[in-house]
Amino acid sequence: MAKIRRVLIANRGEIAVRVIRACKELGIETISIYSTADKESLHVALADYSICVGPGPVQESYLNMERIMSAAVALAVDAIHPGYGFLSENSKFAKMCEECSIQFIGPSSEAIRMAGNKSTAREIMQSNEVPVIPGSNGVIHSLEEANDIAASIGFPVIVKASLGGGGKGMRIIENQRDMEKFLLQAKAEAENAFGDASIYIEKYIKTSRHIEFQILADSYGNVIHLNDRECSIQRNNQKVVEEAPASCIDNELRLQMGETAIRAAKAINYVNAGTIEFLLDEDSNFYFMEMNTRIQVEHPITEMVTGVDLIKQQIKIAEGAPLPFDQEDIVIKGHAIECRINAEDPDFNFTPSAGLIKELHLPGGKGVRVDSHIYQNYFIPLYYDSMICKLITWGDDRQEAIDKMKVALDEVIVAGVKTNIPLLKKIIEHKDFIDGNITTKFLDKLLR
Amino acid sequence: MAKIRRVLIANRGEIAVRVIRACKELGIETISIYSTADKESLHVALADYSICVGPGPVQESYLNMERIMSAAVALAVDAIHPGYGFLSENSKFAKMCEECSIQFIGPSSEAIRMAGNKSTAREIMQSNEVPVIPGSNGVIHSLEEANDIAASIGFPVIVKASLGGGGKGMRIIENQRDMEKFLLQAKAEAENAFGDASIYIEKYIKTSRHIEFQILADSYGNVIHLNDRECSIQRNNQKVVEEAPASCIDNELRLQMGETAIRAAKAINYVNAGTIEFLLDEDSNFYFMEMNTRIQVEHPITEMVTGVDLIKQQIKIAEGAPLPFDQEDIVIKGHAIECRINAEDPDFNFTPSAGLIKELHLPGGKGVRVDSHIYQNYFIPLYYDSMICKLITWGDDRQEAIDKMKVALDEVIVAGVKTNIPLLKKIIEHKDFIDGNITTKFLDKLLR
Repeated sequence: MAKIRRVLIANRGEIAVRVIRACKELGIETISIYSTADKESLHVALADYSICVGPGPVQESYLNMERIMSAAVALAVDAIHPGYGFLSENSKFAKMCEECSIQFIGPSSEAIRMAGNKSTAREIMQSNEVPVIPGSNGVIHSLEEANDIAASIGFPVIVKASLGGGGKGMRIIENQRDMEKFLLQAKAEAENAFGDASIYIEKYIKTSRHIEFQILADSYGNVIHLNDRECSIQRNNQKVVEEAPASCIDNELRLQMGETAIRAAKAINYVNAGTIEFLLDEDSNFYFMEMNTRIQVEHPITEMVTGVDLIKQQIKIAEGAPLPFDQEDIVIKGHAIECRINAEDPDFNFTPSAGLIKELHLPGGKGVRVDSHIYQNYFIPLYYDSMICKLITWGDDRQEAIDKMKVALDEVIVAGVKTNIPLLKKIIEHKDFIDGNITTKFLDKLLR
Repeated sequence: MAKIRRVLIANRGEIAVRVIRACKELGIETISIYSTADKESLHVALADYSICVGPGPVQESYLNMERIMSAAVALAVDAIHPGYGFLSENSKFAKMCEECSIQFIGPSSEAIRMAGNKSTAREIMQSNEVPVIPGSNGVIHSLEEANDIAASIGFPVIVKASLGGGGKGMRIIENQRDMEKFLLQAKAEAENAFGDASIYIEKYIKTSRHIEFQILADSYGNVIHLNDRECSIQRNNQKVVEEAPASCIDNELRLQMGETAIRAAKAINYVNAGTIEFLLDEDSNFYFMEMNTRIQVEHPITEMVTGVDLIKQQIKIAEGAPLPFDQEDIVIKGHAIECRINAEDPDFNFTPSAGLIKELHLPGGKGVRVDSHIYQNYFIPLYYDSMICKLITWGDDRQEAIDKMKVALDEVIVAGVKTNIPLLKKIIEHKDFIDGNITTKFLDKLLR
């Protein structure tokens, strides 16, 4: 590990812009990759150099490891920042980087592999005193085994694909009658989606919140957490509104969960920025859900309340620097909320809304942060994620952050495409949201 | 004093936008005033209601007290926020508000009057142990008196108009031979510019810095300061780049200057937000220059390092609320820099550059704050100040704030009009600036 002088950003959109800005501030040269559909993109305009890696479809460009690695080698980069999504949690890609002596700005391929297999991760956590939801010890192999476990932990249960994500290969089972049918369905779906039919079982917790802890770990075994984010407001397992800190946990629980998060990261010898996701039940029991081995979309809210620049820390850790602060240096100040503004049609089942942005006005001023890659006359391509802007507000307290978000959302103008701004306003102004009375079911109920 | 429900914002541009946002967050109705030249302005679009008060020239609209008061009375507003410039330091306007029982969001007309007369303010400060630059006790009445003072304090001296500002009625006098001529010139210019020929004399300090302290004072005699800003980088007495905290003062001096600033505010029974401007000489002696009895253009840098929302505090103080914090609650975190982006032509003696903004891109992301009223396709009118955007960056330390400013300035696109961005970049990248080695002469030297 040594000083990074040139970075290839293996991503697009706002996170590519975010990483480019951080690199520039650190005096690091930046190289963008882009698909032909993205040639007018802001990340292309801002980078020092840009290279086209293929046509619009992701398999042929942003997911094409060989092409990206060729570009990286040809342009003699020292490091690759994967952003989130795409290849960011692909252990094979991280391995390729290791083999080409290019610093992957993230954890080792081994840590990605361990965290990526959910049943494996579950077992590792269990043996490191990180609470997991009651369920099977690893993969289940037969209907009998599934029934035995369900009988011991009680219905409802949930079956999940070991390599799962995004709700694929997942079934909630209310009673033993449905077990065989749903088990077969889940296995078939898992095989189909991930090329691996392995599934495991957990107790299904009906009313819960999504609480996650941001981790930073250096190469010398120092691991700290930067406290929590609440991300319970989701649609189809996609987060929509996030906040930091979570309003539902007190400092004692925060301390306990933070220590557990550190233990979880240490259990897989984690290095770089990562996130431990917990499920928090009605009785304030928390359980490890999964570890995300990359920067999160919602990282800015942690930056707003702690002041720490997570992308710069990722780069410095990759350069071999020790963490510049201790756990006690991390202090929460105020409250931050993020709204993900998506180009999609809320009246039409949230279908992505590609097209030309004819007019654009984004808010600014005190306590308002905008992370975005769009501009007036930008054409939103068809192929990619519908998120076009992250609007982040900071206030002295939660209510001020909410008030600011309301005013900021009112100010946004995105003409030419449909957006979810009406839904975001509805969330922000909802009594249950204002009262902090939210669960992962909040948005389903609101949209019903 | 009571809860404010409806505010008229007697201003335009970014500060009107800033005040409107703060009011909205507090649930206060907003009324914009505008000139016919400003009907497409953002402050008109954002306010709940808007009222045209006259044609483009400021005397007929933004400086027309009668029209503005008529609008305020007709629309039954509880309060007027004057912003900065225009009527913000006009004691007659503040008095009109008092007489109409409309809360002026600022100090009393009496405090404005006292601070506005520089020779009076000088005398008040002197009798309250606030150091002033050696010079005359108030207005001078004869050539003999001027010569006697100059002999006792030593040349060079500077004569200034009592009601002065913007360099008008000001002369630097190097020796006794020039005294009579320059005295007459200064008096004539003062009479012409301010309708009052009163002048006073001070020792001229060649090498100095402009350091100012932000004050907040409530109606119950509580006065605190929010630390310092350095604003030495000026062209024709107009600040161009400001930073907080000043890099040239240590904590001991900061404490001493802060206490002096509080004493200065108390000396005129000051209430609301205000600024005490000091001149700091090469030997770290500081002298009271003047008090600004309004919010400053550069207030965001103080907000960035303290977290305090100065506009909201102004409103709350006007509502009769006590200060919600003590002096010891005010802690500086990190470092902030503001660059004033002006539509002007640096190659043509900084002539204002009115016209259509054909393309616009403003930066965002971590530690970047934009306070602006412009948008793509906005037409910059001829009549007003050339400032179109305040770009503010925050970093863990001064160097990070500078690095961020450099990257942020590189990202700005304002097509269609000329701007001072090339000059701002030159300042930010200048070795003396980076080393913190700046005086009020810095920009003159750079532009020579």
